[in-house]
Amino acid sequence: MSETAELSNTQARLESIGRSLNAGAFVRVRKMLLDLPASDVALLLESSPTKTRDELWRLLDADFHGDVIEELSEDVRNGIISKMMPATVVDALEEMDTDDLAETLSSLPDNVLQSILKSMDAQDRLRAEKALSYGEETAGFIMNTDTITLRPDVSIDVVLRYLRLKTELPENTDTLYVVDRQDILIGTVSLATLLTASPDISVTDIMDDEPDAISADTPDDEVASMFERYNWLSAPVVDNEHKLVGRITIDDVVDIIREDAEHSMMSMAGLDDEEDTFAPVGQSTKRRSVWLGVNLVTALLAAAVSDMFEATLSQLAVLAILNTIVPSMGGVAGNQTLTLVIRGMALGHVTGSNSVWLVRKELAIGFFNGMIWAILIAGVIALWKQDYMLGAVIAFAMMMNMMAAGLAGATLPIIMKRLNIDPALAGSVILTTITDVVGIFAFLGTATLFLL
Amino acid sequence: MSETAELSNTQARLESIGRSLNAGAFVRVRKMLLDLPASDVALLLESSPTKTRDELWRLLDADFHGDVIEELSEDVRNGIISKMMPATVVDALEEMDTDDLAETLSSLPDNVLQSILKSMDAQDRLRAEKALSYGEETAGFIMNTDTITLRPDVSIDVVLRYLRLKTELPENTDTLYVVDRQDILIGTVSLATLLTASPDISVTDIMDDEPDAISADTPDDEVASMFERYNWLSAPVVDNEHKLVGRITIDDVVDIIREDAEHSMMSMAGLDDEEDTFAPVGQSTKRRSVWLGVNLVTALLAAAVSDMFEATLSQLAVLAILNTIVPSMGGVAGNQTLTLVIRGMALGHVTGSNSVWLVRKELAIGFFNGMIWAILIAGVIALWKQDYMLGAVIAFAMMMNMMAAGLAGATLPIIMKRLNIDPALAGSVILTTITDVVGIFAFLGTATLFLL
Repeated sequence: MSETAELSNTQARLESIGRSLNAGAFVRVRKMLLDLPASDVALLLESSPTKTRDELWRLLDADFHGDVIEELSEDVRNGIISKMMPATVVDALEEMDTDDLAETLSSLPDNVLQSILKSMDAQDRLRAEKALSYGEETAGFIMNTDTITLRPDVSIDVVLRYLRLKTELPENTDTLYVVDRQDILIGTVSLATLLTASPDISVTDIMDDEPDAISADTPDDEVASMFERYNWLSAPVVDNEHKLVGRITIDDVVDIIREDAEHSMMSMAGLDDEEDTFAPVGQSTKRRSVWLGVNLVTALLAAAVSDMFEATLSQLAVLAILNTIVPSMGGVAGNQTLTLVIRGMALGHVTGSNSVWLVRKELAIGFFNGMIWAILIAGVIALWKQDYMLGAVIAFAMMMNMMAAGLAGATLPIIMKRLNIDPALAGSVILTTITDVVGIFAFLGTATLFLL
Repeated sequence: MSETAELSNTQARLESIGRSLNAGAFVRVRKMLLDLPASDVALLLESSPTKTRDELWRLLDADFHGDVIEELSEDVRNGIISKMMPATVVDALEEMDTDDLAETLSSLPDNVLQSILKSMDAQDRLRAEKALSYGEETAGFIMNTDTITLRPDVSIDVVLRYLRLKTELPENTDTLYVVDRQDILIGTVSLATLLTASPDISVTDIMDDEPDAISADTPDDEVASMFERYNWLSAPVVDNEHKLVGRITIDDVVDIIREDAEHSMMSMAGLDDEEDTFAPVGQSTKRRSVWLGVNLVTALLAAAVSDMFEATLSQLAVLAILNTIVPSMGGVAGNQTLTLVIRGMALGHVTGSNSVWLVRKELAIGFFNGMIWAILIAGVIALWKQDYMLGAVIAFAMMMNMMAAGLAGATLPIIMKRLNIDPALAGSVILTTITDVVGIFAFLGTATLFLL
């Protein structure tokens, strides 16, 4: 009975499998894997270095492959599939729902996908191609096609008897759909409504005749925010003619909500959302180097700005010592604004009509923050270096850079979104470049004018 | 019929309300607000500066207040409630579900909470106090108490007739719970199973007699990851004696999943998760200044390290110019590792057993990245400054700092988690301090030894 205890033990069970594997107790590992739900096996694979992952995959019962593949993240899944024989992959994919099939196939490298499609029989290939026919990251792509439909004029009693003929309803069915003879969606009936309805009235009497429906070409992040905003558990998907083509259930949306929320964090560090923590060293080094390369260019740009003031720097070494403070503070302040605006845009809070207000607000915060930290740093430097003029110079530069940071942090994501550039990915690097250049220029420039 | 079009128009409708408000067309705004679902009104309030927000709230029909309050984020909700009369708040809270009531009340400042509790009648106060009795951020706190329970020995026919006596089932009911005379949970029956069952068998025949249950004191992020991992739509909540006390539905969990995923991003920029994008300037300035203060200390620390090499810097101004490159690259590389490890821990991928492997991997990436960028920067500097020795010095410093970055980025969050410190909040500032200090020390130290 006590399932509660068992659930919190998942971690312990996974660690015990790890130990058994290290000890070479393969038979035991094979048995332990059979006892785990597919999602836990997926977690175990995702938490293992590539070598261990391959070993575990070999020990896993082949009947289980499909269920586990569904649960894996993209990077890990592709790594495993690309090492399997196409025919084995086809077996594993056979029982998958259309939405999972579409997701699995679409993320595969093209040559792997082609060889898998070739190994399929005609019927399966048709199914796969249909699943792939909707654009990736659309409602059509993430929907299930196994809906139960009703006609409006039948009685509840007939519906109940019809349902009893089935051994079970499709997974996560919570709503039945009412369609006319052309398959056009005209209403929905939740299971809860059906159960409280009197048997002798008809479907029309209890159906919701203004159902919320999602068009098949809606982008998936919009689908996710609708589910989130309206607390839906499922929603029907319709084509351009309002014909019912499938349904989306919230368990498919939850993954999108998490990925969506994680996307900004990963992008801001120049990482891919699907980046596999346990990928081999070579692969990870290669992936991260692009971002480091971009950063090297901006660091050299900042150095080039300092280079313009070489004469000043060679006369006053103290400027070299303090040269990092103003850019660093600008970078942090700008990054706070940037993060907040990017999140605000993701939640739908930042729109055309309030963005001017927002930019003005962040500029004002930059001004006040600039005042606070300018006074403080002026005091610290005046005391440390016994030089009031130096204090005044760094205070002025701080003031300028904090305002630049607020302005850039707020306007950059808004402008980039209009240009269809992902602000999370490119925003932080452009922002840092701005705060570095403005900070160094303001500090060394003012110093050259007043201190030499 | 065409609800699909309407849905994607939410944004447009919100903007049109904004325009009407600016034009002073209050009667029109009042009418438009009545047509919006509560979640859209909440979105509108969250997207508005404080002044506009107060105006909109006054224009909103009072019957609607409770529904909208439920949907608001913490910061915005508290701002609104603290300006309302306690008696009005009590009216608005009257119809709330226990989980929403608990969440709303618990986030209020203590003095506001007390005056609201005082204005309640005895029965409501009891309900409120019960809702608050479970620890915040636990399963008990987010559960609903409106469950439908069945006895194991009754027939399906009786169950169906019993359900038909109700006009409707509690919101988002997808499962009925089977309990014995002591209220101990012994099984679950999904609505889908109930509908496909034959009327003359009994509940015991169709119930799942090993139901997954959540203990009331489970932390809410653990609840969220169970829902995510096992694709649940709802789950029963039990107390220590396995008595049924409530149920959690996925729509309540979705918010936790998003907050959880956003938490790291916001924390890494030193922001509060609930930070209101449209808060007044003064409030935002104050909130962000703590983080800027911490950063000023680390920036001064880095300056102090440079200060140790004042003699070197005054002889070679070129070192001052290049002094920012190595710390900057180390900061970016370390931040990539840190972000990846923090996310891996949130997803449950990074555990005790694989953390040693992970640290070694990140150190190796640091080594290879160090090699790549050391060679590149050496080449650039040798060409730019026509100084091979200077190139060699910066290359060595880059190598050292990249390895330090990988090591610190991987070990910091693991150590901090063991010490129960939030790695997302404190990790990035400690990391930057390490990469700044190591970078400057390695560069200026080596330069002092070999270039003077």
